[in-house]
Amino acid sequence: MATETKVETLRKLAVLIRYFILTMTTRAGSGHPTSSLSATELMTCLFFGNIFRFDADHPQSPNNDRLIFSKGHASPLFYALWAAAGELTEDELTDYRKFGSPLEGHPSPAFPYVEAATGSLGQGLSIGIGMALNGKYLDKLPYRTYVLLGDSEMAEGSQWESLQIAAHYKLDNLIGVLDVNRLGQRGETMVGWDLKFYEKTISSFGWKAILCDGHSIPEILAAFEEAFRSKDQPVMVIAKTIKGKGVSFIENKNGWHGKTLNREECDRALQELGTIDKSLRGEISLPDDLKPKGQASHQPPKQINYPPDKAVATRKAYGNGLVRIFPQFPNLVSMDGEVSNSTYAEIFKEAHPDSFFEMYIAEQNMVGTAVGLARRGKIPFVSTFSAFMSRAFDQIRMSQYSNANIKFIGSHAGVSIGEDGPSQMGLQDIAMFRTILDSVVLYPSDAVATEKLVEESARHFGPVYLRTTRKETPVIYSPDEEFIIGGSKVLRKSDRDKVTVIAAGITLFEALNAYEELKKEGILIRVIDLYSIKPIDFATLQEAARITKAMITVEDHFPEGGFGEAVKSALAVVATIPIHSLAVGKRPKSGKPEELLDYEEISKKAIVQKVKELIR
Amino acid sequence: MATETKVETLRKLAVLIRYFILTMTTRAGSGHPTSSLSATELMTCLFFGNIFRFDADHPQSPNNDRLIFSKGHASPLFYALWAAAGELTEDELTDYRKFGSPLEGHPSPAFPYVEAATGSLGQGLSIGIGMALNGKYLDKLPYRTYVLLGDSEMAEGSQWESLQIAAHYKLDNLIGVLDVNRLGQRGETMVGWDLKFYEKTISSFGWKAILCDGHSIPEILAAFEEAFRSKDQPVMVIAKTIKGKGVSFIENKNGWHGKTLNREECDRALQELGTIDKSLRGEISLPDDLKPKGQASHQPPKQINYPPDKAVATRKAYGNGLVRIFPQFPNLVSMDGEVSNSTYAEIFKEAHPDSFFEMYIAEQNMVGTAVGLARRGKIPFVSTFSAFMSRAFDQIRMSQYSNANIKFIGSHAGVSIGEDGPSQMGLQDIAMFRTILDSVVLYPSDAVATEKLVEESARHFGPVYLRTTRKETPVIYSPDEEFIIGGSKVLRKSDRDKVTVIAAGITLFEALNAYEELKKEGILIRVIDLYSIKPIDFATLQEAARITKAMITVEDHFPEGGFGEAVKSALAVVATIPIHSLAVGKRPKSGKPEELLDYEEISKKAIVQKVKELIR
Repeated sequence: MATETKVETLRKLAVLIRYFILTMTTRAGSGHPTSSLSATELMTCLFFGNIFRFDADHPQSPNNDRLIFSKGHASPLFYALWAAAGELTEDELTDYRKFGSPLEGHPSPAFPYVEAATGSLGQGLSIGIGMALNGKYLDKLPYRTYVLLGDSEMAEGSQWESLQIAAHYKLDNLIGVLDVNRLGQRGETMVGWDLKFYEKTISSFGWKAILCDGHSIPEILAAFEEAFRSKDQPVMVIAKTIKGKGVSFIENKNGWHGKTLNREECDRALQELGTIDKSLRGEISLPDDLKPKGQASHQPPKQINYPPDKAVATRKAYGNGLVRIFPQFPNLVSMDGEVSNSTYAEIFKEAHPDSFFEMYIAEQNMVGTAVGLARRGKIPFVSTFSAFMSRAFDQIRMSQYSNANIKFIGSHAGVSIGEDGPSQMGLQDIAMFRTILDSVVLYPSDAVATEKLVEESARHFGPVYLRTTRKETPVIYSPDEEFIIGGSKVLRKSDRDKVTVIAAGITLFEALNAYEELKKEGILIRVIDLYSIKPIDFATLQEAARITKAMITVEDHFPEGGFGEAVKSALAVVATIPIHSLAVGKRPKSGKPEELLDYEEISKKAIVQKVKELIR
Repeated sequence: MATETKVETLRKLAVLIRYFILTMTTRAGSGHPTSSLSATELMTCLFFGNIFRFDADHPQSPNNDRLIFSKGHASPLFYALWAAAGELTEDELTDYRKFGSPLEGHPSPAFPYVEAATGSLGQGLSIGIGMALNGKYLDKLPYRTYVLLGDSEMAEGSQWESLQIAAHYKLDNLIGVLDVNRLGQRGETMVGWDLKFYEKTISSFGWKAILCDGHSIPEILAAFEEAFRSKDQPVMVIAKTIKGKGVSFIENKNGWHGKTLNREECDRALQELGTIDKSLRGEISLPDDLKPKGQASHQPPKQINYPPDKAVATRKAYGNGLVRIFPQFPNLVSMDGEVSNSTYAEIFKEAHPDSFFEMYIAEQNMVGTAVGLARRGKIPFVSTFSAFMSRAFDQIRMSQYSNANIKFIGSHAGVSIGEDGPSQMGLQDIAMFRTILDSVVLYPSDAVATEKLVEESARHFGPVYLRTTRKETPVIYSPDEEFIIGGSKVLRKSDRDKVTVIAAGITLFEALNAYEELKKEGILIRVIDLYSIKPIDFATLQEAARITKAMITVEDHFPEGGFGEAVKSALAVVATIPIHSLAVGKRPKSGKPEELLDYEEISKKAIVQKVKELIR
């Protein structure tokens, strides 16, 4: 039971935190005070009620509990909590939302206590799953992961993906705190204050649901204590709260979302808070000092071994590659969206089941979980069909602001998958991943290149996208060939090259075949395997542009934002020779891979024809 | 009660349908027979048990019930049903998955009985919501919408978005059929045959759940009859089924997903089916012949009226524009993701509440619903923050294969939103929408251009993306100015232009200000408002490339796939002058819009500097 003194101290701290929230947002002139005030008691109890355990001097300590503000717009509350903990001065709070301040409008790792960037709703729970999976199954440490959720964001399907997966993995170290303040941005949620709806739905997914009054300190403390008793079940504390709580004239009123009080209103509000003890500081409990489960010692990977000229699908080489490099990168974790027998993540799963997580057909949660794992020092390799990566674009987008070290592997790229038809064809994936800040985009053509680039991806810190092909392709590189991020291979070259053909993946073989056919007619072309689409090998492209009179890019992808535009973009500043793009331009259909490559005019035939047209 | 004869006929039809499924997939050598066999009785009863009402001679009749195969890989079953209905010959089935056949690997509108393209899982229910909303609230017709769902795809969050919204809108004309065959692509689902899980979760979302044995014809017929009695509640028929049902050696076996029987296995399987009456054909009941609710007569829109030089946010002009054109386009429907007071869809909502649907924070379902409405002849205008359009990329991707006439409106584009920070900034939206086949991408800079382009968007059949700005921008165009898809405006031009600066939206004003500053120093630049990014005004760009010695594109967007690459791509074939790109290149932060435009080097200052650098 909470003692009276403890409750009184928490009450005073809540007053101080409200003071910080109100003054910080009024000074900034923007932000979300009302969404912060509704969760003030919930988070005050968590922080200072001996619930949350965190060593503030070592925010990255593996023993720390983790806290994610899924409702990222409540950032004023987050910063106010750390001010009340003595880790931010009131002066620092005045920089909230100012250019250059780590206290951004929505939380970002610029502020060292932020676990991951939030602000796009419905993502925090999945990030929490990554951290909780890490605690329970990888590091095997008893820390807990807390996620503060808004009620509006429960309309996002990603939340229900997370709820199901968390229950499936029995994450009793994961505690959600659902702040049911009834009001969204423009009005009431579908559910309002019907807490029973949340209780029914969430518990039906296998969670323990605990209801409480989100402004009653004893009820909140009791809810957390009950949560600690859960065994093999994640817990949701479902709290009835009032938006704008503590300031009578904005409490439970529509039209106050994302709106700050003016100075006069703020003064009135502070009056209502009563005595504010500005010197008061709360104490966060420290965690035990334990060591994470030791990982296998780092060992160099084995030699690659593919018989030359044997055809191997690059997707299969991906699976082989993961297994091969695991001894060197024991932090590697593989996750797959219920297609591991197609992406060949299953090769890794069979070899290292403890470092594999089946994420089912729920790509959004899979990527969010990867963010959580990455932020806990793991190297997640996330695989599904390249087409279905689009399902998680918002999570991928947000992951760039978390500096999350994730490797994305998209299989079944392009029309060359054949009969399954356009719904299964990744034709926009290069464009999508190229837009990510500082991303690496790789598209190997054979098994050796794939294995080498899987290794480079693991070594590189930052987001990497690697595109694999369904069909088997010939092994054209020797196991000693080196592949680097930002590199390329000039496969056919002479002083008499008329045209440069730039390809990668499946179309490289079309280009090589076109070379043979043209050569018979005495026409020489330069052929470049541009396996690194981002960063791009500018020097090699520029050299080719100097020697040949035109360029042709060939890609099994839509033209916009793809391979061809990457080349055009790189060379646009030096504008030397015309660059023609062969790409998927018509609505694809079902059919044989060869038929489709021809139909889309990205096959040998189209290349030969284009080259002839250009040298006429 | 079902009569014995009726049940016997349905049983025979199920045998015939299984025969079609098995022979079709074996001949094709690819496809998903087992996933089709599990739902055979469910769909046979629907089609031929006097449940489904459809005039096969008029597939687009507004009175027809609609059926969506959300588990699109069960396409063999879909085609087999239409063959059993006499609408496809056995000979036509032999073309399944062949190049040029309308019977694609996953259903697409190439086959006239397909309501919408499926194959990316977890989308059919949202499409069904669009059709059911149309029936209940717009056309006011009694048709029903059926959606066949797989159990694996219930892991997709989008399903739970749909479940909540369908209950919220009391769609008792929507009936889901959940085929619980236990097995996904690579193994068992998280739930297996725990039908109670589905019953609990789905009913907790407000649906009526009806359990049945998915291979018992009387139970299935009874379930549908019970479904018809639902009032104000959507219904889910949850059926326990066996994957591969009817063929003993593949029944309920892992490893048989997406795998066809070889000829010998197929022969054995056909033996097991018993007597096959190949001449048997089933009958689909006809719907009543009713008229959809009449729409307001088409009237020309009112005149645009903004006082010159007044600053108006383009997002506000969007809301005004919708209201203005509604008399001309009474089929227009506005939908918004709980941010209508930010996107200004609320202006329309207040004027025409019956043609507005609040879709809450569930962007995936919103876009799927728009597909359903579009396929029923409506013109959905879908709005949310441009950043959050990424949440629905997979649905947007699939919508291109449904030929869905949807208008996407993304507000709060770019870093110029300011203090809210990167999570809320649309910086990849142009890239994303450019990748859509035959899409139109528009980015107006002032209120007049916005209103005109909203009108053009409504007039154009096909996907349109229109990007709006948070900040107010000056009105620079007269109400008589014409804007066309594929056009641009040359705003500053002389014979002595040194450099062309191409901008749109917020950066256009930076370019105009740069013009003024450079002019003072005697440097003339050409300024183009490239409001139509796709299609692009090639002639105007080429003319500018002929006259000036370099080009600068300026965009409040990441460089990849964006505005600058669109220009580079258009001009690459004629490779004349260097094209430099000013774009958002650093991780954005919170701050004032002006600070951020400067920081990202896309402001007047950066343009002036770049121009001077280029003419040195």
